[in-house]
Amino acid sequence: VRFVSCTTPDEFRGRRSCGTSGRTRGEQGAGAFLTFFPPGRVINAGKSQHNEDQACCEVVFVEQRPSPRGSGELDGGRKGFYFHYWALFDGHAGSGAAVMASERLHLHICEQLRELVGILQDPSPPPVCLPHGAEPGSADPSTEEHGELPNDALPRFHLEKAVSHESLVIGAIENAFKHMDDQIEQERATQHLAGGCCALAAIYLMGKFYVANAGDSRAIIIRNGEIIPMSREFTPETERQRLQFLALLRPELLGKEFTPLEFPRRIQPKELGKKMLYRDQSMNGWAYKKIEEDDLKFPLIFGEGKKARMMATIGVTRGLGDHDLKVFSSNIRIKPFLSCFPEVRVYDLTQYEHCPDDVLVLGTDGLWDVTNDKEVAAVVMEVLTSYEPNDPCRYTMVAQELVLRSRGVLKERGWRLPNDKLGSGDDISVFVIPLGGPGNYT
Amino acid sequence: VRFVSCTTPDEFRGRRSCGTSGRTRGEQGAGAFLTFFPPGRVINAGKSQHNEDQACCEVVFVEQRPSPRGSGELDGGRKGFYFHYWALFDGHAGSGAAVMASERLHLHICEQLRELVGILQDPSPPPVCLPHGAEPGSADPSTEEHGELPNDALPRFHLEKAVSHESLVIGAIENAFKHMDDQIEQERATQHLAGGCCALAAIYLMGKFYVANAGDSRAIIIRNGEIIPMSREFTPETERQRLQFLALLRPELLGKEFTPLEFPRRIQPKELGKKMLYRDQSMNGWAYKKIEEDDLKFPLIFGEGKKARMMATIGVTRGLGDHDLKVFSSNIRIKPFLSCFPEVRVYDLTQYEHCPDDVLVLGTDGLWDVTNDKEVAAVVMEVLTSYEPNDPCRYTMVAQELVLRSRGVLKERGWRLPNDKLGSGDDISVFVIPLGGPGNYT
Repeated sequence: VRFVSCTTPDEFRGRRSCGTSGRTRGEQGAGAFLTFFPPGRVINAGKSQHNEDQACCEVVFVEQRPSPRGSGELDGGRKGFYFHYWALFDGHAGSGAAVMASERLHLHICEQLRELVGILQDPSPPPVCLPHGAEPGSADPSTEEHGELPNDALPRFHLEKAVSHESLVIGAIENAFKHMDDQIEQERATQHLAGGCCALAAIYLMGKFYVANAGDSRAIIIRNGEIIPMSREFTPETERQRLQFLALLRPELLGKEFTPLEFPRRIQPKELGKKMLYRDQSMNGWAYKKIEEDDLKFPLIFGEGKKARMMATIGVTRGLGDHDLKVFSSNIRIKPFLSCFPEVRVYDLTQYEHCPDDVLVLGTDGLWDVTNDKEVAAVVMEVLTSYEPNDPCRYTMVAQELVLRSRGVLKERGWRLPNDKLGSGDDISVFVIPLGGPGNYT
Repeated sequence: VRFVSCTTPDEFRGRRSCGTSGRTRGEQGAGAFLTFFPPGRVINAGKSQHNEDQACCEVVFVEQRPSPRGSGELDGGRKGFYFHYWALFDGHAGSGAAVMASERLHLHICEQLRELVGILQDPSPPPVCLPHGAEPGSADPSTEEHGELPNDALPRFHLEKAVSHESLVIGAIENAFKHMDDQIEQERATQHLAGGCCALAAIYLMGKFYVANAGDSRAIIIRNGEIIPMSREFTPETERQRLQFLALLRPELLGKEFTPLEFPRRIQPKELGKKMLYRDQSMNGWAYKKIEEDDLKFPLIFGEGKKARMMATIGVTRGLGDHDLKVFSSNIRIKPFLSCFPEVRVYDLTQYEHCPDDVLVLGTDGLWDVTNDKEVAAVVMEVLTSYEPNDPCRYTMVAQELVLRSRGVLKERGWRLPNDKLGSGDDISVFVIPLGGPGNYT
C-alpha cells in the first residue's frame, strides 16, 4: 500500500524542474505514510511482493526549439511555457514498463509540445499548413507560421476546418503516449523491461487540465460536492466491440484458438446444435444462435467485471508495454489488440471559481475497486473540513485517508474494511490535486 | 413538408393491428396539416420534388410460434403480447428503401420477438442455452426453456454472465434492422428499390420504450421541462474513428482514390513536403505531419457539420439500403463502410410518474437542423399549455407547430423563419408521443 499526494501548487512551483533535465518523484517508505520527493523509485509497502504501481509528478518547462536559421537567438532569452504533470502507472507482469513510463512519459509530452510553443502562445487559430522546412514553433510567428510566403500564396479554402489550440494539445498528448510505447518496445531487450502498465496522467497547461487515461485507473473532479468524471476505464468489457471488430477483420490474429463471438459462458462440445445466447461486434443486446463447431473455441472476451479477460490473459485493453505478451503456452500475440492511445478529457479551470475544497483525484484501480466515487467524495469532504483551508498538508491527509480506508486492516481472513468486506488486495496509489485554495496555477 | 403525429394511446389501441397482417399508416395531403391513418404511402407536400421521408405507426401483436410438437394448441388461445411502434425513415437517392422499410421493419421486429414470447413473459432470467430443436418461445416454458432435460443435465457454470430480458429485446431490434437491410438487398432488383434511408424507431414493450436509431434523425424525451436525449446521430464526423479503422485494416476498400487520414482541407500537389494538420483513427486531437504523395488522395472523411461527407458521397453512416451506392464515376462501393445496426436506448416508463405534458419527440434531420432541442421543448410546452390536458388533439398540434416553425414561410429568398434565417430545405417529419396523461400503455 502506498500513496502519493501532490500538496499545494506553491510547494509544487518551488520544485520546478526545467526542460528535459531535473524532475521530482513521489516515494514512500514501507508502512509509513510520508510524502517526499527525492529522485528514485517507488518501493513496495507491504501488500504485493513487488509494488507495480509507479507515480510521477513534475513541473516541466517546454522550451521552444532554436530556429534552424538561428534567428531565434536574436530574440533574447528562451521562449516557452511550463506545464504541471501528475501521473500514475499501474504495472502488470513486472514493473519495468511502469518504471520507464514514470521516468519518461512527461519528457515525450514535452517533446511533442516543443513543436507547438509559438502556435500555442499565439491567440490566433493554429495554421493548417506550415512552410517547407519550418518547425511549427520556430522563430517569428508573423511571417513563418501564419500563412505562406507571398510568392507561394495559396487560394483560400472555404471548406477549411477550424482546429483549436486545445485539440493540438490533445494530439500532442496522444502522440506522446505512442512515442512512449515505441520507446518501451525498442529498449525492452537492453533495459530488461518486463510487462506493461496502465497510464493515467493529468497535465495542467494554460488554464486547462488535460486528463489522459489508457487503462483502468480513474480520475474524478470533486467540485462543490459534485462529482465530475474525468476518465473512463478501458477493459475487455468496455472495449468489446473494438476488439471484436478487429478480430472479425483480422481473424489470423486469433490463431485458430479463439472465436470473436461473446457467449455468457463456455460451451461444451455436447451442446453442439443447441441454441445459445451470443453477441457479435455490431450488437449491444443478446440473441440466440445455433451452436456450431467454431463456437466451441474460447471466446475472445470472457468473464465479467474484474474477472473479464481478453484472450483469457489480460484485464485491461489500453496501456503501455506488453510487446512480448502472449496467450499462455501459445504463440498468439496480445499486443495487436491493445491500444496505447489514451482518451483525453479537458477541464477548463477558468470557467468556474474554485474553492480550496475542490480537488482532482487520480487513483489506480486498487482504490476504486473498494471505494466508489461517492465514498471518495465523502472522504475528501470529511478530511478537508478537519483542516484549515490554507493548511497545505490537508490534501496529503486526504490521500492518506483514501489509501488507508481502501486497504483495510490485516486480519486472520485477509485485509478487511471496517464493514468486514475485503479490502483491496491490489496496490493503491492516489493523487489529490487542489484546484483552488492557497496558490493557484496561473 | 409533412408531419406525422401519434395522438393518444387510447386512439392508438383502437386501431390495433394484429400479428403480421393489418397495419396503420400516417399520411398527409400536400400543404394541409391533417393527421389520418389509412394504409398508403406518404406523399409529397411541397418542398422537395419527392418527399423521401416515410413514417409508420403500429400496434403489433407478437404471437408465440406453435410448438413443433403441436402441444401449444392444447394451451387454448394464442400466447403473445403487443408492442407499440413508431418509426421515421428519411430516404436519400430515392424513396424505395424508405418505403419498403416503413412497410416492413416492424414485421421484422415482430419476427425476432416471436422467438422470445415465452422467455419475456417469464420473470426468471433468460436461459443461456436452449435444448436441441427447441424454439426459445415454444410451448411450456417450465420444461423446455429453463434448463436442460434431466438426462442432459449440465454442470453449473460459475462464470456465467447474467443476461437481462431488456438486452434480449435490444438484440431482437438490432437483428431486425439487419434482416430488414438484407431484405432490401435481396429485393432491390425486382422491386426497383432505389437509395437508402435513415431509420429511427420507438418501440414500447412491457413498460419500457426502446428507441433505435440508425442515421441522423433524433429522439428526445421532454419530462417536466427537462430534456433527455434518446439517440445520437451517426455521421462521417461522429463515426470517423470507426470508418478510419476499417479503412486502415481494409485499404483495398479505398480503391486507391482515398486516404484514411483526415485533413482540415484538401492538399495541393505543390504543398508536398510541407507540414499539415491531420488525425488518424487513434486520435481525437490534431497534429502536424509532413505531406507525402499518399496524402494528396481525397480524404475518406471530409467537410464539417451538415457538409461532412464520407468518400465525398454520403452524409450519414448508418441506415438501411444503399447496396448499389458507389463513389461518383468509379467502382468504389460505399456500403462496406455503412452500418445497418441501430444504437438502442432504453427508457423505463415505470420509474417515474409522468404527467400529460411529458412526451417523446421523434424527428428527421429536417426538424433538428433549424430547431434545436431547447426550442423544441419550448414549443412543446407552449402548445400543450394552450389545450386541456385531456384533449387528445394537443399532441397533434405540437407536431404541426414544430413542422411549421421549422419550415418557415416561402419568400423571395427561399423559405424563411420568423428571424429571417433560412428554414429547413429538407423534408420534415415529427412524431409527438405522450408518455402520460389520458390513457397509458399498460
